[in-house]
Amino acid sequence: MTATAIVTAGIVVIGDEILSGRTRDINVQQIAEFLSPLGISLKEVRIVSDDQDAIVEAVRALSERCDYAFTTGGIGPTHDDITADAVAAAFGRSIDVRDDAREILEHWYAKSGSEITPARMRMARIPEGAILIENPVTGAPGFQLENVFVLAGVPKIARGMLEDVAPRLTGGAVTHSVSVRLENAREGDLAAALGELQDQHADVSIGSYPWFEDLGGGKLKRGVALVARSTDEAALEDVERALEALGASQT
Amino acid sequence: MTATAIVTAGIVVIGDEILSGRTRDINVQQIAEFLSPLGISLKEVRIVSDDQDAIVEAVRALSERCDYAFTTGGIGPTHDDITADAVAAAFGRSIDVRDDAREILEHWYAKSGSEITPARMRMARIPEGAILIENPVTGAPGFQLENVFVLAGVPKIARGMLEDVAPRLTGGAVTHSVSVRLENAREGDLAAALGELQDQHADVSIGSYPWFEDLGGGKLKRGVALVARSTDEAALEDVERALEALGASQT
Repeated sequence: MTATAIVTAGIVVIGDEILSGRTRDINVQQIAEFLSPLGISLKEVRIVSDDQDAIVEAVRALSERCDYAFTTGGIGPTHDDITADAVAAAFGRSIDVRDDAREILEHWYAKSGSEITPARMRMARIPEGAILIENPVTGAPGFQLENVFVLAGVPKIARGMLEDVAPRLTGGAVTHSVSVRLENAREGDLAAALGELQDQHADVSIGSYPWFEDLGGGKLKRGVALVARSTDEAALEDVERALEALGASQT
Repeated sequence: MTATAIVTAGIVVIGDEILSGRTRDINVQQIAEFLSPLGISLKEVRIVSDDQDAIVEAVRALSERCDYAFTTGGIGPTHDDITADAVAAAFGRSIDVRDDAREILEHWYAKSGSEITPARMRMARIPEGAILIENPVTGAPGFQLENVFVLAGVPKIARGMLEDVAPRLTGGAVTHSVSVRLENAREGDLAAALGELQDQHADVSIGSYPWFEDLGGGKLKRGVALVARSTDEAALEDVERALEALGASQT
């Protein structure tokens, strides 16, 4: 096994919709699941409101501390879509309608017979020096500026854009994971053995997550999910066997 | 109408489980929905890994910039539960097993016939000066330190703890919202009118969210959800009527 660096990513979710509780975000999970097999681990996520200062601060922070940063949301044609301007501001770049983006929109709307309104033309505003990201669903492109990838908020579009982004990413060691689900187990009974196991395997991260299932009639089923993660598959196999043995000892 | 201040909250989600993509967070939405009718608006969320420095930084940041901050996750009995120590460190407080928390655990485990293992006693570790938060599901308490409320990560437990927290919160103006769902509409056609409407109503925040529904067979249904939010109900009613008229003009 070759030792490979851990490559990290951050996500800035731009969305009053998420913060209000009206919509539950699914892009974080979607992006995490996309990056994981590429050898890129999510390190931090920030959900901020549709406010330029908040977006600028979060984009700068995650762009600096992670190898890659992604934003979702706020790149449509309406007045509340301020992400492109905010990302340009975060890097001190100018922003304007760019010919390559305009041509994509013209081509796209010509096909569908829609008019390119001035509002739609806003979606061709791309920061100076950015590389476009293809949008296979609705045409209007995202863009990459430095190590920041600006994606749409609509999950279906964000997913399509990730396909275009993937070849631009250099992953590191892939983090593998195993999980063992124990029924009727309780964390307090497992904790000492788990702590010892963690001490013995510094290269494996072992997590313990209690779960509860409502069976109705006031009855609750409970258990613990044990999850181990590592870039070292051999060490992970050892830990998996130990976790299974731990589970067997509880029943 | 009395003008009331906007009261804000932040959430620090502590969770390798969320960052790995294995689990989709639901506490953000749950807490947002709980706070909203109390007149408290979510301003920022950070999802960080099970790492003391990361937790300390996020707790300090959101405690400073929001009226209230909440953490979820990492307060169980296992080695990966480091939230209580991290929150104590964020405020430079000492932390140790505290009698009131120990008594709650003793009482709880006596009822269920379980042994209080040293691991379980970790859950009685409470920072100096903190106020306990009742856990109606599994006994082990959360705590409040300054303006930070430390909740469990299991959604059912977090929800129970919020009930105990609610009377300690002083809300401000309640933000009301209305939404108008348009089928077959497209943002680019609505954007100009929406922008004008937003300009006319500085006290209402108008958001536009495209949606797509997969009808199968390669067919896609599309539309736009228009959402307006304000603490001023009269202004919100005006905007709602305008949004409905806008919708009618599109069909």
